[in-house]
Amino acid sequence: MILPSQLETEFQSRLGYYFDDPLLLRQALTHGSEARLPNYQRLEHLGDAVLGLAVSWWLYESNPEYTPGQLTVSRAHYVCEKALAQLARKWQLQYVLRCSPDADAIGVRESDHVLSDVVEAVIGALFLDTYSVRRVQQIVIPWLK
Amino acid sequence: MILPSQLETEFQSRLGYYFDDPLLLRQALTHGSEARLPNYQRLEHLGDAVLGLAVSWWLYESNPEYTPGQLTVSRAHYVCEKALAQLARKWQLQYVLRCSPDADAIGVRESDHVLSDVVEAVIGALFLDTYSVRRVQQIVIPWLK
Repeated sequence: MILPSQLETEFQSRLGYYFDDPLLLRQALTHGSEARLPNYQRLEHLGDAVLGLAVSWWLYESNPEYTPGQLTVSRAHYVCEKALAQLARKWQLQYVLRCSPDADAIGVRESDHVLSDVVEAVIGALFLDTYSVRRVQQIVIPWLK
Repeated sequence: MILPSQLETEFQSRLGYYFDDPLLLRQALTHGSEARLPNYQRLEHLGDAVLGLAVSWWLYESNPEYTPGQLTVSRAHYVCEKALAQLARKWQLQYVLRCSPDADAIGVRESDHVLSDVVEAVIGALFLDTYSVRRVQQIVIPWLK
């Protein structure tokens, strides 16, 4: 069995969710420069779609008066790189990300692009751990508001 | 209680799924030119995100060797306007769509753009009727293959 590291445990505590499968979380928190472990890129691809539905569904339900145009604008507000990088910093992901010393030296931990990708990967991992968009919403949407 | 029309019943038979809430299906099949009824635009916005996750999750699970780039290319193949308009024609949506006589006269039923939007709206309606991405996958993915 894989035990979460101290940083991973603290992250889950901040998130308010403890993974059934800690390997999913570890993968979501592993940059491509860390060649010894599976990295977050495939989870990020999935998580992008999970986040899109989680936010679209939430906006659809909570704003019955919104036009499609308003739904689009509002979704873009919540799922843009800037908003996701902000969320990554609230989750302190820059300290939990595993990357190579070289990647660390060139500042990947502070890159908005990388941090927003990691958020999407964590959301992909949450979905694969719960198989529930509703559960992902309950965990993530309060942080996005 | 709203009873489905003959065309709506035949469509559900083709789809292999009968809606618990026939009003959701009716809304998904109503063009904006039909001003007396709620139209498909909000459902299309939601359905776009549902389809994105249904396809991304399916590709993620069924192609563990795919790189993120391959996942992106493959998703674009299945969710592009052309593929969705083809699906609309398999589902014979051009005959089930409700629109005004004027819209009918200018050919909205034959527009790839409109037909792909209607497919997304139907997928949004399926999701709101089932609350399950897995169920949507089971219904839709075999048609996309």
